[in-house]
Amino acid sequence: MRRVVAGPEIERLIQLLSKLPGLGPRSARRAALHLVKKREELMQPLTAALGDALEKIVVCDTCGNIDTRNPCMVCADETRDHSLLVAVENVADLWALERAGAVNGRYHVLGGTLSALDGIGPDDLNIASLISRAHEPEVKEVVLALSATVDGQTTAHYITDLLRDADVKITRLAHGVPVGGELDYLDEGTLSAAIRQRTLF
Amino acid sequence: MRRVVAGPEIERLIQLLSKLPGLGPRSARRAALHLVKKREELMQPLTAALGDALEKIVVCDTCGNIDTRNPCMVCADETRDHSLLVAVENVADLWALERAGAVNGRYHVLGGTLSALDGIGPDDLNIASLISRAHEPEVKEVVLALSATVDGQTTAHYITDLLRDADVKITRLAHGVPVGGELDYLDEGTLSAAIRQRTLF
Repeated sequence: MRRVVAGPEIERLIQLLSKLPGLGPRSARRAALHLVKKREELMQPLTAALGDALEKIVVCDTCGNIDTRNPCMVCADETRDHSLLVAVENVADLWALERAGAVNGRYHVLGGTLSALDGIGPDDLNIASLISRAHEPEVKEVVLALSATVDGQTTAHYITDLLRDADVKITRLAHGVPVGGELDYLDEGTLSAAIRQRTLF
Repeated sequence: MRRVVAGPEIERLIQLLSKLPGLGPRSARRAALHLVKKREELMQPLTAALGDALEKIVVCDTCGNIDTRNPCMVCADETRDHSLLVAVENVADLWALERAGAVNGRYHVLGGTLSALDGIGPDDLNIASLISRAHEPEVKEVVLALSATVDGQTTAHYITDLLRDADVKITRLAHGVPVGGELDYLDEGTLSAAIRQRTLF
């Protein structure tokens, strides 16, 4: 005997919340109850913030970042080094690099990696626009900040091939020991790379 | 160097999402990106569902359940056994019992348990209204379906005292081995209770 516990509006809210990454059916119920309990402090502001974002968020035509303006904050920032172009897989990676404050250049969001298994080819990604931006005279270096996975590296090689005749330096992220990481838990590939690419103390 | 990654609207959305139980700052960012990516399928419906719920959700005057109508679906259900009143700590517990289809009576949401540590006294809970409902002539049994914690049991004892002169049977949930649970992992208290309250096979 399985009963519907609450009205259809609440059931629908729970069902939609459960589609967020990190929330399953049980935590979606908890979240819905929490929202109802914190009506003024959380539910109203969240509803407003979602509506606001829904109305204003756009994808940057230049780099593929999401923002409420186009071009986005990063592309519009004139203090950034226009000679450095960092290709990333997705917006989450762009944000991660920005949070680290690691990049003072601009970005290009590919929208994924090439994947034979998932049927993702070059035309499904923003590769043509990257090649075109890499040919702009001010660009001197393209960093392929892609995952160290097979698909990520396949994509990096593919792009490197296309950029052969462009007058840019092509670089990739260093392999090595994560900061705070213990050697004991690292795989052999990372350890060998960390030894090979060792730096002066 | 800590940069703001996106416009204030997105930052605000992330900040509010991170206040949901089960979502931290990192998963709130993931959720926000997921929402933006699934604009039509998820972000729009979720915004609408939140607005809808915000507008319609009310607390049931009778039992304290939340629903879009007052009295709530459970209280309004005439097929339920009006002689059985189940007191629960919160709406989540009510929903859990409803999902289990374990109760064919009605509920009373106390809104928590007595707690000397948190300064929660009888007046902070819906105890007076429970006592009043328990005195209705149709009510024959009050189940105190409270947590098997010190605070839960203190609350149960307190309510039992107040109901001494009411003409109702007062019961509580059985202790025992959870269905699918392994004896090896259970504490001694549960095991002794399960033995004491053993039933015929």
